[in-house]
Amino acid sequence: MKNKQFLLKSRPVGKPTRDNWDYVVNDVAELSDNQLLIRIDYISLDPAMRGWMNEGKSYIEPVQLGAVMRAGTVGQVLKSTDKNFAEGDYVYGHCGVQQYAVVSTQGMHKIDPALAPIERYLGVLGMPGMTAYFGLLETGLPKAGETVVVSGAAGAVGTVVGQIAKIKGCKVIGIAGGADKCAYLVNELGFDGAIDYKSENIKKSLKELCPKGVDVYFDNVGGDILDDVLTQIRMKARIVICGAISQYNNTTAVKGPANYLSLLVNRAKMEGIVVFDNAANYGKAVAEMAGWIAQGKLKAKEHIVTGFDNFPEALLMLFDGENTGKLVLKVEA
Amino acid sequence: MKNKQFLLKSRPVGKPTRDNWDYVVNDVAELSDNQLLIRIDYISLDPAMRGWMNEGKSYIEPVQLGAVMRAGTVGQVLKSTDKNFAEGDYVYGHCGVQQYAVVSTQGMHKIDPALAPIERYLGVLGMPGMTAYFGLLETGLPKAGETVVVSGAAGAVGTVVGQIAKIKGCKVIGIAGGADKCAYLVNELGFDGAIDYKSENIKKSLKELCPKGVDVYFDNVGGDILDDVLTQIRMKARIVICGAISQYNNTTAVKGPANYLSLLVNRAKMEGIVVFDNAANYGKAVAEMAGWIAQGKLKAKEHIVTGFDNFPEALLMLFDGENTGKLVLKVEA
Repeated sequence: MKNKQFLLKSRPVGKPTRDNWDYVVNDVAELSDNQLLIRIDYISLDPAMRGWMNEGKSYIEPVQLGAVMRAGTVGQVLKSTDKNFAEGDYVYGHCGVQQYAVVSTQGMHKIDPALAPIERYLGVLGMPGMTAYFGLLETGLPKAGETVVVSGAAGAVGTVVGQIAKIKGCKVIGIAGGADKCAYLVNELGFDGAIDYKSENIKKSLKELCPKGVDVYFDNVGGDILDDVLTQIRMKARIVICGAISQYNNTTAVKGPANYLSLLVNRAKMEGIVVFDNAANYGKAVAEMAGWIAQGKLKAKEHIVTGFDNFPEALLMLFDGENTGKLVLKVEA
Repeated sequence: MKNKQFLLKSRPVGKPTRDNWDYVVNDVAELSDNQLLIRIDYISLDPAMRGWMNEGKSYIEPVQLGAVMRAGTVGQVLKSTDKNFAEGDYVYGHCGVQQYAVVSTQGMHKIDPALAPIERYLGVLGMPGMTAYFGLLETGLPKAGETVVVSGAAGAVGTVVGQIAKIKGCKVIGIAGGADKCAYLVNELGFDGAIDYKSENIKKSLKELCPKGVDVYFDNVGGDILDDVLTQIRMKARIVICGAISQYNNTTAVKGPANYLSLLVNRAKMEGIVVFDNAANYGKAVAEMAGWIAQGKLKAKEHIVTGFDNFPEALLMLFDGENTGKLVLKVEA
């Protein structure tokens, strides 16, 4: 049984290219005790993967050179040597960018394909959904009537942040790239407004759409957009630092928010979040999110690219802002 | 009766110079009802004054061109048309950079010259002390055993922040400019260590002095020092943004903290404070601080420059880092 894999060959400078990957075909290993052989069906493509490719300390170890690229995955158990998992079970875990994985059962979670399409467990019911849920509700602390702005609004996390903020009674403005994405946010997801960062003056549009100022800003992008929003925050605003996708491929230093003294003027705070800290409460969150989906209050959206071999180019779609909703790679054509 | 005054003549670009001031001598006005004539004895010189000289919205209105420069002051009541104030009372208020002031009693607070030298009400028992007290205790939230780092450590706010952190059982490291200031912090104020930013590699010294990382960083300076500390923060660290004196005379954009994504990696937060928000609780804080002073746990330090006419040059001492402790201008020679 042959297993196609993408190994990290070299650490990228700027955007990752095909040269950063070793595309290899290996035999699938034999199972030891308490292991699973998994056929991977969907691979999650996330902005955080760019950080994992860098050397040096972050919130998680970097991927080692020569190792299978780390990625969240959903797939089906083909063989099990653990009594808690049966052949045919579907599981979520970090099985990497490959077709098959032999893994210990630790960190593998059974998912229910009857409840939702399995790829949804990489999106709204997975890490991006959890990131949005906990980041917004526990760090952003939105109150009904407040104004919430989210950047990367058409992405996996942003779409969920905005919808949860609407559920909580907030006015929601999304910042996204392109008229189509902006129309999608307003017409399909019920955002109160959207700003196209590719064609609009963000500061001016924020002033118009948020005349009272911004109470909560959920930042997925960093860079100039963070600086623009900082000029429009309200007293006691909360800025959730979830990511900074505009900066991940920088070959120069990260752009720090030059307007950070707005935090002082407005007695505001900026706080970083990492979803894993909430692992103990994922179950409760998934249950609540599934309820919102069932009631039609929360729409799930996946952007599926098909074909394992397309991984390098598909990953770049994130940084080029080409996805709407959760970007996933479907392994088989 | 003649009254020397410094009026704001023009808004400075970079460091304020004598050219930005109109030095004038005016007659003292007659009193209306509920007013005081005050002889100003000490004028507070504060980094925030630089911001008040700029045009545009901040946490307080800018000083208008042609107006007496705003400043905190202590002085004695010479005449009163308000039954709550008597001739001879000493008062704290914002009476501006002048020898005499005719003001309404609103915003004027009686102080007790028997309890402490009156200039102390501009320092440890005044705004800088309140800033340190509330900023550290309510936003920094230090716990015994944690490591607290403060920049501008030898200044009016920094000296108090460090001493309160010691009272709360923390390890305290100060960042200041020059060997004398550093020796003062350690030998006189009981800091556990001090870093001379003029001669040391801050990041390296922080690693040595704070091997477990920084739990609370109280930032008075911004710029490169903020960026260096960001690389050394611990999980769940709290950064109190009190000021950014390194940036106030910039003629280019403020330097944003390029390492702000350390907030994400470390699930840390950065929060701005303005002392006035705690006005309702000043009394309680002053009482506690006075108790610490009486017990010898909190040392007050004023840096007194004598002579009203020296105001322009004395103000610049703040930005050149020439003061140790609270900088005040004594009006009479």
